[in-house]
Amino acid sequence: MTVTQLKERSMLGLKELDKAEIEGILDRAAHWENHPSKVHSHMAGKFAANMFFENSTRTRFSFEVAEKRLGAEVINFSAAASSVQKGESIYDTVRTLESMGIDVGIIRLKPIGVLAELAEKIKVPLINAGDGNNEHPTQALLDMYTIRKHFGSSLQGLNVSIIGDILHSRVARSNLYGLRKMGANVSFCAPDNMRAMELDAPYIPIEEAIQADVVMMLRVQLERHESGMLNSAESYREQFGMTAERASRMNSHAIIMHPAPVNRNVEIDDELVEHPQSRIFPQMENGVPVRMAVVERALS
Amino acid sequence: MTVTQLKERSMLGLKELDKAEIEGILDRAAHWENHPSKVHSHMAGKFAANMFFENSTRTRFSFEVAEKRLGAEVINFSAAASSVQKGESIYDTVRTLESMGIDVGIIRLKPIGVLAELAEKIKVPLINAGDGNNEHPTQALLDMYTIRKHFGSSLQGLNVSIIGDILHSRVARSNLYGLRKMGANVSFCAPDNMRAMELDAPYIPIEEAIQADVVMMLRVQLERHESGMLNSAESYREQFGMTAERASRMNSHAIIMHPAPVNRNVEIDDELVEHPQSRIFPQMENGVPVRMAVVERALS
Amino acid sequence: MTVTQLKERSMLGLKELDKAEIEGILDRAAHWENHPSKVHSHMAGKFAANMFFENSTRTRFSFEVAEKRLGAEVINFSAAASSVQKGESIYDTVRTLESMGIDVGIIRLKPIGVLAELAEKIKVPLINAGDGNNEHPTQALLDMYTIRKHFGSSLQGLNVSIIGDILHSRVARSNLYGLRKMGANVSFCAPDNMRAMELDAPYIPIEEAIQADVVMMLRVQLERHESGMLNSAESYREQFGMTAERASRMNSHAIIMHPAPVNRNVEIDDELVEHPQSRIFPQMENGVPVRMAVVERALS
Repeated sequence: MTVTQLKERSMLGLKELDKAEIEGILDRAAHWENHPSKVHSHMAGKFAANMFFENSTRTRFSFEVAEKRLGAEVINFSAAASSVQKGESIYDTVRTLESMGIDVGIIRLKPIGVLAELAEKIKVPLINAGDGNNEHPTQALLDMYTIRKHFGSSLQGLNVSIIGDILHSRVARSNLYGLRKMGANVSFCAPDNMRAMELDAPYIPIEEAIQADVVMMLRVQLERHESGMLNSAESYREQFGMTAERASRMNSHAIIMHPAPVNRNVEIDDELVEHPQSRIFPQMENGVPVRMAVVERALS
Repeated sequence: MTVTQLKERSMLGLKELDKAEIEGILDRAAHWENHPSKVHSHMAGKFAANMFFENSTRTRFSFEVAEKRLGAEVINFSAAASSVQKGESIYDTVRTLESMGIDVGIIRLKPIGVLAELAEKIKVPLINAGDGNNEHPTQALLDMYTIRKHFGSSLQGLNVSIIGDILHSRVARSNLYGLRKMGANVSFCAPDNMRAMELDAPYIPIEEAIQADVVMMLRVQLERHESGMLNSAESYREQFGMTAERASRMNSHAIIMHPAPVNRNVEIDDELVEHPQSRIFPQMENGVPVRMAVVERALS
Repeated sequence: MTVTQLKERSMLGLKELDKAEIEGILDRAAHWENHPSKVHSHMAGKFAANMFFENSTRTRFSFEVAEKRLGAEVINFSAAASSVQKGESIYDTVRTLESMGIDVGIIRLKPIGVLAELAEKIKVPLINAGDGNNEHPTQALLDMYTIRKHFGSSLQGLNVSIIGDILHSRVARSNLYGLRKMGANVSFCAPDNMRAMELDAPYIPIEEAIQADVVMMLRVQLERHESGMLNSAESYREQFGMTAERASRMNSHAIIMHPAPVNRNVEIDDELVEHPQSRIFPQMENGVPVRMAVVERALS
């Protein structure tokens, strides 16, 4: 197999995938979700390395469960952002694990542009598990999978609003790219200082945003903001939060989504997290079969 | 299977178990200890998640070895107490792992009352691996297993003294509940400021305590004490420690136990840790088959 | 099997091995490298514990991949050097894991002399994965394996220079012992304050050192030096670094080695790390089959 073919099995972002590829992954995820046995031997004898240069709980465990359900051997590498600051060190670490014979690398990292560089230099397929504020494709795939489960297989014409810190959100970007390819209409809603001007999508007021079919809240990423950007959690909630009051005015067929972890009572009220219209925990559930499909694609 | 049936397979504390249930677990542990092959496929395809919100070496590895010997897939989550302080965050983490399809959760945490709340809300069986100063049931089970190996299958009428910081000890509480159900007589020995007044057991002097059949020393949990509560390690050793001199006055058939890790030369003299009458390392050895029995019960 | 026989399967250092034993391990590594299937069941049902009391990325993962390729169950213990400072605590931790039924322990630690003590007291075979500044035998084995792959099966008469901080280097020591047994000529090149006077090997100037068949650069271990020992990275590079200019004057058949991680542009120029004459990433690749051979020997 050529290096080019190997790289085609990488998953760097949804910008590069077409509709048929996305649908193929979602269909395969449905296969895994509905499969009666939990652990398989499809990937027996293959090594997956989870290389997290930025903290993660749910994405890392979701990949680990997915890899183990596929029968793969799993290697977990985590580095505090502080100990591996330079792209060069990330390269040496990834290259080291590649030298040891891994078959696929799942990677999360913060510095902008490093993943693209790695994909040039590393021979094994790489799966983006969160790339600075660029893309987080498996999150968007599991989001689309969750939307499909509720609305049926076509996303054509669905209205999706994404509310919150668009500027710093890789989830917003991957969902924008993916949802548009699937025919959905994506709108953003954000404070002025959290808008991403390079993204070509309309910004709408909160009251309009909550009338969409899918209302996707983003985490207020306090750790990415300089102090002062956010006046206060309470005023954010009032202006842009999914409060119980706003939820009561949503369409009855609509769903609330959030990539988690949630800041309860900041971007979403505590009582809404497990509300019947919320898909927050089902999103996590769906993450496993979706990542099985993505890892399987990389290893196949 | 109903949620109630699932919860019956949880192991939150020995307070809730009866004698027959305890004996069933200990008998099953003996089965595993004596089994010629080390790794089994009983639990193949099941996922166990070790969720430690408080530090642990031996309990965590003991569960991990037990789970792997049962053939289960293992997911390890550890959080520094500092990063997950609120019960709410613990809930979100446990609920997240549940959403990913784990079959049993092994959990250690510090905040009082959170485990009981979790058990109400989480559907998969939970095993208490240390719950604040409330209970540590698998430690008490392995302690009873260790006592049975030495004294025979009945613990009826055995005198057990537990010496040290009763107030902060979940090990003392679980042993008190469990040992009494098995018919043993439990006495405590502790400095005034380390007594748990809500527990109905006699406090006896150290010289009487060391005449018991089983002398169980507790770790001085320096990390749980405010400064000043403990005058000095040396004075503690003199008043409540298992010194070589005190050990020489124990009954020849008696055994010394300790849940470990030990503070050598504080609650027990260095030279006694691997003394013929000590069961400290055998306790750790017994922990594996006992936890196999507990995990198997949860997953069955 | 007696304790003595078990201990013969330990790998504490190359000082204790003879040429035939080293060759046996290298031959067996070649068997594993050339084996078509990646994961085996040779060690199914055996537990390997990686116990790292000092940080490591590549050695730890290399062992983990090796163990998993052998089909063993893997337990990973890591302790920040700060939390387990005394040899006594290391002993209790290792003894604890032994009690839980591990079959082999892979151990890295810093305090001098503790590994030798452990080997006296612990019954299961121990493999040295880095022992203070004493030995790092599996690194030297993979280095010799890498040299053999380039120069053929006999190392007799090969000139090897080891350049850098000999004083603090366990890699230099293990290579000195191992390479000499294989018939190679070992020379050192180091600043005055980085020489190990107890080692019986000649110190030669840098310009002579780079004329060897194998030029092995050592990591400048900034973390082991008191401030001031090293004037500056730049002056070190000028005096003892493998610069592009020096590399251009090496023999065309010669190879550059480095145990990694590298300080790029300190002991070796960035552009040389993946130079055709460099064996740095191939060394990591070779580490896996070499460690498979060492772990297999310990468990057999």
